[in-house]
Amino acid sequence: MSFTLEHICHVIGCEIPRQAENIVIKGLSSIEEARPEDICFLSNPKYLKHLNTTNAQVVLVGKGTPVPDNILPIEVENPYFTFVKLLALFNTRKSTDIASGIHPNAVIDPDAKIGNNVSVGPFAVIQSDVIIGDNTVLGPCSVILTKSSIGKDCIIYPNVTIMDRCIIGNSVILQAGAVIGSDGFGFAPHKGRYHKIPQIGIVRIEDEVEIGAGTCVDRAVFGETVIKRGTKLDNLIQVAHNVQIGSDTVIASQAGISGSTKIGNNVKLGGQAGISGHLTINDGASVGAQAGVTKDVAENETVSGYPAKIHMKAMRLEAALRNLPELIKKVKAQEKRILELERIIKERS
Amino acid sequence: MSFTLEHICHVIGCEIPRQAENIVIKGLSSIEEARPEDICFLSNPKYLKHLNTTNAQVVLVGKGTPVPDNILPIEVENPYFTFVKLLALFNTRKSTDIASGIHPNAVIDPDAKIGNNVSVGPFAVIQSDVIIGDNTVLGPCSVILTKSSIGKDCIIYPNVTIMDRCIIGNSVILQAGAVIGSDGFGFAPHKGRYHKIPQIGIVRIEDEVEIGAGTCVDRAVFGETVIKRGTKLDNLIQVAHNVQIGSDTVIASQAGISGSTKIGNNVKLGGQAGISGHLTINDGASVGAQAGVTKDVAENETVSGYPAKIHMKAMRLEAALRNLPELIKKVKAQEKRILELERIIKERS
Amino acid sequence: MSFTLEHICHVIGCEIPRQAENIVIKGLSSIEEARPEDICFLSNPKYLKHLNTTNAQVVLVGKGTPVPDNILPIEVENPYFTFVKLLALFNTRKSTDIASGIHPNAVIDPDAKIGNNVSVGPFAVIQSDVIIGDNTVLGPCSVILTKSSIGKDCIIYPNVTIMDRCIIGNSVILQAGAVIGSDGFGFAPHKGRYHKIPQIGIVRIEDEVEIGAGTCVDRAVFGETVIKRGTKLDNLIQVAHNVQIGSDTVIASQAGISGSTKIGNNVKLGGQAGISGHLTINDGASVGAQAGVTKDVAENETVSGYPAKIHMKAMRLEAALRNLPELIKKVKAQEKRILELERIIKERS
Repeated sequence: MSFTLEHICHVIGCEIPRQAENIVIKGLSSIEEARPEDICFLSNPKYLKHLNTTNAQVVLVGKGTPVPDNILPIEVENPYFTFVKLLALFNTRKSTDIASGIHPNAVIDPDAKIGNNVSVGPFAVIQSDVIIGDNTVLGPCSVILTKSSIGKDCIIYPNVTIMDRCIIGNSVILQAGAVIGSDGFGFAPHKGRYHKIPQIGIVRIEDEVEIGAGTCVDRAVFGETVIKRGTKLDNLIQVAHNVQIGSDTVIASQAGISGSTKIGNNVKLGGQAGISGHLTINDGASVGAQAGVTKDVAENETVSGYPAKIHMKAMRLEAALRNLPELIKKVKAQEKRILELERIIKERS
Repeated sequence: MSFTLEHICHVIGCEIPRQAENIVIKGLSSIEEARPEDICFLSNPKYLKHLNTTNAQVVLVGKGTPVPDNILPIEVENPYFTFVKLLALFNTRKSTDIASGIHPNAVIDPDAKIGNNVSVGPFAVIQSDVIIGDNTVLGPCSVILTKSSIGKDCIIYPNVTIMDRCIIGNSVILQAGAVIGSDGFGFAPHKGRYHKIPQIGIVRIEDEVEIGAGTCVDRAVFGETVIKRGTKLDNLIQVAHNVQIGSDTVIASQAGISGSTKIGNNVKLGGQAGISGHLTINDGASVGAQAGVTKDVAENETVSGYPAKIHMKAMRLEAALRNLPELIKKVKAQEKRILELERIIKERS
Repeated sequence: MSFTLEHICHVIGCEIPRQAENIVIKGLSSIEEARPEDICFLSNPKYLKHLNTTNAQVVLVGKGTPVPDNILPIEVENPYFTFVKLLALFNTRKSTDIASGIHPNAVIDPDAKIGNNVSVGPFAVIQSDVIIGDNTVLGPCSVILTKSSIGKDCIIYPNVTIMDRCIIGNSVILQAGAVIGSDGFGFAPHKGRYHKIPQIGIVRIEDEVEIGAGTCVDRAVFGETVIKRGTKLDNLIQVAHNVQIGSDTVIASQAGISGSTKIGNNVKLGGQAGISGHLTINDGASVGAQAGVTKDVAENETVSGYPAKIHMKAMRLEAALRNLPELIKKVKAQEKRILELERIIKERS
């Protein structure tokens, strides 16, 4: 796949530099790994030095960025966003790579309602009373159990499981191996044994949510486990029963959210962060990677560490801890000096 | 689904209050989110205030709990356990939601022995010499490799993999995407390269064990990886080769147990806890969420933090750490005062 | 399965002891759990005491190890490596346990190129333009999307997903439920919402790599996510987009590697370790279990803790922290003594 630089300038809506003529771009790359025929971008001034060593001839740069003579700069408002547009231009992947049309080897219950232009891969299973919206694509070996519904324009990748009675909105993406609606971890202890508590609730996922590979979202014990519009979950995340996650929140890989916790809108959870149960992480809060959150987090607050503290405080404690061996030496030295003072005072008494 | 309050009282074995007549209950809810037609429960005195704001008309409460006039209390010994009974009453989910009968699109080897009343979903695979006990249900796209056996009354959810030669007891539940019997992580380093050590052991899972979605239990290098009766594992847990887990133990999501470690009976492991290899976590021990356990844990001991310490000690260290910046200031101030004392003493000498 | 001790000695290339006659070995075991008919090994001198209590009659030991009279020692250079050879001898598992021949219930696109002696299990899916090398085995319900290639002598276990356009080398093992080529977690924030960045790159996995059960390797946003020759990944690991992992590196379960990070050759990552994005972990480095790495790690360096520090330093800080409550008491006591000195000095002035 290749495009003339002229066409690229047209796509990104920038002026066509005079030297663009005859230049053909064959790929996208980072500035460090670019071949001469690639286009790359420079966004962070910290990487300016790479302009001197890159093999790229054409680089997307911010307005007024100084570039060496051998580089043809394409000046744009925001090089990173412009580059994202080019990713779309060079993208040859399409949802029909996953499934195209309804494969004869899929099993679709006659009582399921399938929208228009739906694709279902081989060995996908759609049970009774399932509803699938228009244009949705189900990958091979994905399983949708009874009474669940999926909206339109969704992509369900291979080997995904959606358990019974769950509600998935429009334009939702579920990466391979994700599990939606598994039983919550609910057991009543009685005389030293654990008795399973029926998990009769569901999972509801709103529009434009993306769920990463291998991520598990447990159904509610009763009521709903909810993930609201536009929220994005990375891979291998645990969302326990009755968790509520707001809109436009991003959660990095391997984070875990315990039962009944509420995560607000526009929250950021770092990778491998863990949130205890029955907490509230309020709107706009940020939780650092690997943080262990044991208390509510206030609006727009940033916390980190274990147990999680306000980030600035955690940094101060960390700095103090680094000084601790020094402090121990100092106190030891002071001990000697105090002893010496006490000795002198006693002598002179 | 709805029941008269009279019927509900009958089910839970309590007296029918005079006002129960004509009241119909349509659902179960938390006290905070209840609609007027729901029944909810109040167990923790800390939530007593919700009685004043709930929309519920009927609330399960402990004996003698004071309630506002507009609420009809159903007094029971243990409101939470009683509520669990109602979850079973309102539960419309059934194992036949997963699979009902043997689907013609399942592949079952003629040498497999299938018990009575077994259900197998579409695209499930049962290889040669597998044994499946009575009433067991295998979800769609679940795979049971050769020579494994599964007891009776088990539920194997969709997309589960049970590798060859593993032994699963009765009344075991495997949530979607779980993997039983994958190879242990065993490699012999030799001249800077890693050579695979054949993993010829198996996994044995005893009766009444539940394994969460996406959880992986590796087979033993030789002998058995064992999970004993009644133990419950949450989602996305790692159980390495040759691990032994006792009875009635609960392990929260994303915990990881390294090779050859022994976990006793009635142990509790918190979410994201990690246990090093070749350790013993003795009966009744508790390991806090995110704890990193590097030494044996004694019977009934509680540990937390990284590296894990006896919880009370970890709390004291945490409290001390919070005081550290203050301590540093104090030592600095003392430094000045000692210097001043030294100066005066010198002057007067 | 059983072998004469003579045959075993022949296999491991050691002298046949006189007493070997008529001894038949029926299994392999640890020294603690051995039955009389098992062979076991003793490698670590710390376990010498087990020689007095083991039920085994035959034990592989290092040259010159003193053993009780009732034990027949087989002296070898390296008992552990010798035992690994016996694991291969006693191994009855074979790749045809997973799939043998091309099952009529697999779906293989006519445009796929399938090598010689390939096995494909039931309900496996091989899409258009996929290439599969000789002798490779694909387990049931594994899915290979369009334009991906897999080398020869690979084992792909059940329920694995390989997304489109990925490149897998020779002698690669993918354990059950692994996901290769899922979308990277890339979203462009714009006016409070997250917009998906097309992930147009691929995953490339070199020869002799093993990937654990449930592990997820995201494709690159552009270019490649790479795992180089001979590297071994355990279960439930997250490898984010554009990560590069060198050769002969081992990564333990539940570790997570954030986007664009480079891991060198011969690196060791402990279980549940987390590495931030855009870092370099240089050749020969070791990262402790649960470490949270926020900065580059130098060649052959060992780091641990959160935030990760050079291990020796982390140990010193940990030791210092343990002394902190004592230090606080000491400073309090010094405070009193300084006050007393100040009082005396003032009195005498």
